[in-house]
Amino acid sequence: MTDNLSTRIAVVGGTGPQGRGLGYRLARAGHEVVLGSRDAQRAITAAEELSAQAGGARITGATNLAAAESAGIVLLAVPYDGHAQLVTSLAQALAGKLVISCVNPLSFDRFGPYGRTVSAGSAAEEAAEIVPSATVVGAFHHLAAPLLLDPEADLSHEDVLVCGDATAAKERVMALAADVTGGRALDAGRLRLARQLEPLTAVLISVNKRYRTRSGVALTGLAPAVGKVPA
Amino acid sequence: MTDNLSTRIAVVGGTGPQGRGLGYRLARAGHEVVLGSRDAQRAITAAEELSAQAGGARITGATNLAAAESAGIVLLAVPYDGHAQLVTSLAQALAGKLVISCVNPLSFDRFGPYGRTVSAGSAAEEAAEIVPSATVVGAFHHLAAPLLLDPEADLSHEDVLVCGDATAAKERVMALAADVTGGRALDAGRLRLARQLEPLTAVLISVNKRYRTRSGVALTGLAPAVGKVPA
Repeated sequence: MTDNLSTRIAVVGGTGPQGRGLGYRLARAGHEVVLGSRDAQRAITAAEELSAQAGGARITGATNLAAAESAGIVLLAVPYDGHAQLVTSLAQALAGKLVISCVNPLSFDRFGPYGRTVSAGSAAEEAAEIVPSATVVGAFHHLAAPLLLDPEADLSHEDVLVCGDATAAKERVMALAADVTGGRALDAGRLRLARQLEPLTAVLISVNKRYRTRSGVALTGLAPAVGKVPA
Repeated sequence: MTDNLSTRIAVVGGTGPQGRGLGYRLARAGHEVVLGSRDAQRAITAAEELSAQAGGARITGATNLAAAESAGIVLLAVPYDGHAQLVTSLAQALAGKLVISCVNPLSFDRFGPYGRTVSAGSAAEEAAEIVPSATVVGAFHHLAAPLLLDPEADLSHEDVLVCGDATAAKERVMALAADVTGGRALDAGRLRLARQLEPLTAVLISVNKRYRTRSGVALTGLAPAVGKVPA
């Protein structure tokens, strides 16, 4: 499992809705994907289902740790509860790698969803604090899981807002984002702007409930095709 | 100046770019607008300019206090620095009124813009704390001032995300928003989601710098015309 290490993508939390959806879309676009889960068998079952759905795409399942160890790119697609603990447990496997965080620190009460206070500022920055040698990029916060999992859903009109402090890593994630949606990825700026991108999902969930839809984000004022980090 | 009190709109900070732009668009749509400034003469001059630009629309100028006293709807369009102090100084004039906050608590350093920490959670909630009898609604955070001020700029493809805890007030602001942009306003949810809407502007400014544009927000997954708070 080390031959394609640099291009293989592990999805930690790969049996959750967001992780499954992103894994499915990445595999469908030709990437080799390893779904991770606390329970390896659950991940293997999910991988088999998605692989069949994606026409025999390369998706396997493993524990979160084994998945992270086997891949050069690790996508964190877990709930925020237990996030720090999980990232700490994977620190060695994440060291030196490209880590993509789509973690949304949200809570819910009788008034609906809201952004949680994160001492590091955001989940993405928390991961970067725990694994300083990893290159953390924030992305994919706003894509609705049921749409990711729907083979017919056209996501090309949604923008994937990508934040990070390393240009090359950001460009790589922007290319992956274009594979996921078939549309546009935008360089949103520094990693710390994950503080804005992550809890914006609370607004989308609130809108979804009010308008009975699955909303997403698009920015106005930009050319349709913007794939590179601008100079 | 009390005849049209309930429908007259005061713009506190009405000589700043956002305040001027919103005042211009509201007046052009037929609303009676009073621009407020610390310096009454500055507000009067700005009002005369905008009135001419808007074809003789009803725009006058006054001190922030006189503007707020003379209007039933007060739009706060001030920088966050000094916000609490200003709102406190206007508390009597704002009492019992509809207060619309488009205040964005942002700071800038060598890495660009970022959202500031606000102890009340957001500027909108801060205003609501200071003037508990006011009905505070958050809106208009994401419209670029130069586009608001450009008579030719079409803003109908941008969404105005409106948050608040009082449905009737929110509907009223959504109707004003439709007058400002000619497009769609969306009920984004509770007032506390201003914590997400306000600093999202940091992302837009970051994108503007990177892509040399004036970006705005649109949500995907919603019908083109949504003007009412949904049931």
